[in-house]
Amino acid sequence: MPLDTISTAKSHGGTQGVYRHHSRTTDTAMTFAVFTPPQAETGRVPVLWYLSGLTCTHQNAMDKAEYRRLASELGLMIVLPDTSPRGPGVPDEEGNWQFGSGAGFYLDATQKPFDENYQMYSYVADELPGYLATHFPADMNRQGVMGHSMGGAGALCLALRHPELYRSCSAFAPITQPTTADWSKPAFDKYLGASSRAQRLYDPTRLIEDGKRFPEFLVDQGTADPFLDTGLRPRLLEDACRHAGIPLRLNMREGYDHSYNFISTFMDDHLRWHAERLQA
Amino acid sequence: MPLDTISTAKSHGGTQGVYRHHSRTTDTAMTFAVFTPPQAETGRVPVLWYLSGLTCTHQNAMDKAEYRRLASELGLMIVLPDTSPRGPGVPDEEGNWQFGSGAGFYLDATQKPFDENYQMYSYVADELPGYLATHFPADMNRQGVMGHSMGGAGALCLALRHPELYRSCSAFAPITQPTTADWSKPAFDKYLGASSRAQRLYDPTRLIEDGKRFPEFLVDQGTADPFLDTGLRPRLLEDACRHAGIPLRLNMREGYDHSYNFISTFMDDHLRWHAERLQA
Repeated sequence: MPLDTISTAKSHGGTQGVYRHHSRTTDTAMTFAVFTPPQAETGRVPVLWYLSGLTCTHQNAMDKAEYRRLASELGLMIVLPDTSPRGPGVPDEEGNWQFGSGAGFYLDATQKPFDENYQMYSYVADELPGYLATHFPADMNRQGVMGHSMGGAGALCLALRHPELYRSCSAFAPITQPTTADWSKPAFDKYLGASSRAQRLYDPTRLIEDGKRFPEFLVDQGTADPFLDTGLRPRLLEDACRHAGIPLRLNMREGYDHSYNFISTFMDDHLRWHAERLQA
Repeated sequence: MPLDTISTAKSHGGTQGVYRHHSRTTDTAMTFAVFTPPQAETGRVPVLWYLSGLTCTHQNAMDKAEYRRLASELGLMIVLPDTSPRGPGVPDEEGNWQFGSGAGFYLDATQKPFDENYQMYSYVADELPGYLATHFPADMNRQGVMGHSMGGAGALCLALRHPELYRSCSAFAPITQPTTADWSKPAFDKYLGASSRAQRLYDPTRLIEDGKRFPEFLVDQGTADPFLDTGLRPRLLEDACRHAGIPLRLNMREGYDHSYNFISTFMDDHLRWHAERLQA
């Protein structure tokens, strides 16, 4: 499994790198970013995934999420995958930011023609971890996952379906019920078929209804987020967790929006949450 | 002096805003960013300027310099001007990133046709402070200035020429002698005339040779910066400061490059340096 290094730069005592490889899962070239903390010089370090939201690549959070200072102090490797397959031959809908390129929703599509490339769930859960284990000083027995918006949904689903892989999970402004939210339901229908049973595999609240469990979640949500009431609906997750007995620390953050101004503000809290659980 | 608010977002307890106005100095619309810390709710706060490098607008450092967390804690207002006038009618050289748009060099051009708009020195030193005093809770008696590369030169020059306006000055990888560096001399010749006396007004080492003084400087410079030996040359500033008796804390940072990976790593040190001097 060869890997190309696109760039590396020293930052906060560690190394911020960007890498590219051919993915057998998506059958495309895939680019991702990894921050390797200085502690990795003397041993394998815990891995914390950050899954980005709609329209993003690996670069948005790399530039704006402000994770390096504290990840360096805490000894966390931060991994930022892309949000979809891309490139010539990958089916897309030009001008639709809620489907196709930049909108892979961390699911494995079943519907043609999307099923050939849109396999982001397996890419993130199965294939990319192999690259980390092979090419990076990553301790794959200590993985945590966090994400924002679409990526928050992805993080919650990965944790609920694979509590044996992830020791910790948090989200910034997650889409709590993507199968019914106005900005994600059309994509789910196209990727997975309308009303298909498979949709529930990529919906955090449905997974909890279907019996999936995780030890605890941390969620931050801005009260000035324009997507709060229609797209995100944290109360749905709160209800699902309460009924299921899953401890949820839901912080409603007064006046914060949906942007990296919000994410970067609470990034330190999330990094500490994960570090406590990954290093326990 | 009307001012348009382009955007505001809550971040780290303060407000990150982007603003636009018509500048009488550059005779163009000018955009700038201001981070207002939470301490401004109860009184005017010190102002710290950040002058960006070649190719940048206000946005690069706003996205990537990671100043908000600590500026919020220290109670500093951070102001990020653009690096040049822009727009239709402003003379430019397409494809030349070292002259024209994005390359104003914080100087007042004297040569036609550039003298009409390229007046960034006066814009930053004189006009924009008026907007801050009028529209923001800024204490204009407590100003500090920092900058990167081209903006590092700008910061050093502003401080040397106006020690009565700025109480503190620092730079990341400054162009220490832009009148002779390969990537800035052509611009200086075009803006100011070849071999003109005026060039020395925008060159930190020449200003020191010509008797200008400032209490002390902080400079950080990466050793893996590709522009180190030809464009930046920190030793020239070190020599000038030593001869002039100006205390210079020059930190050569092993393995760091010229990017925001470098700047963001040492931003905290610079913010603390300024806060100590602005709040003394």
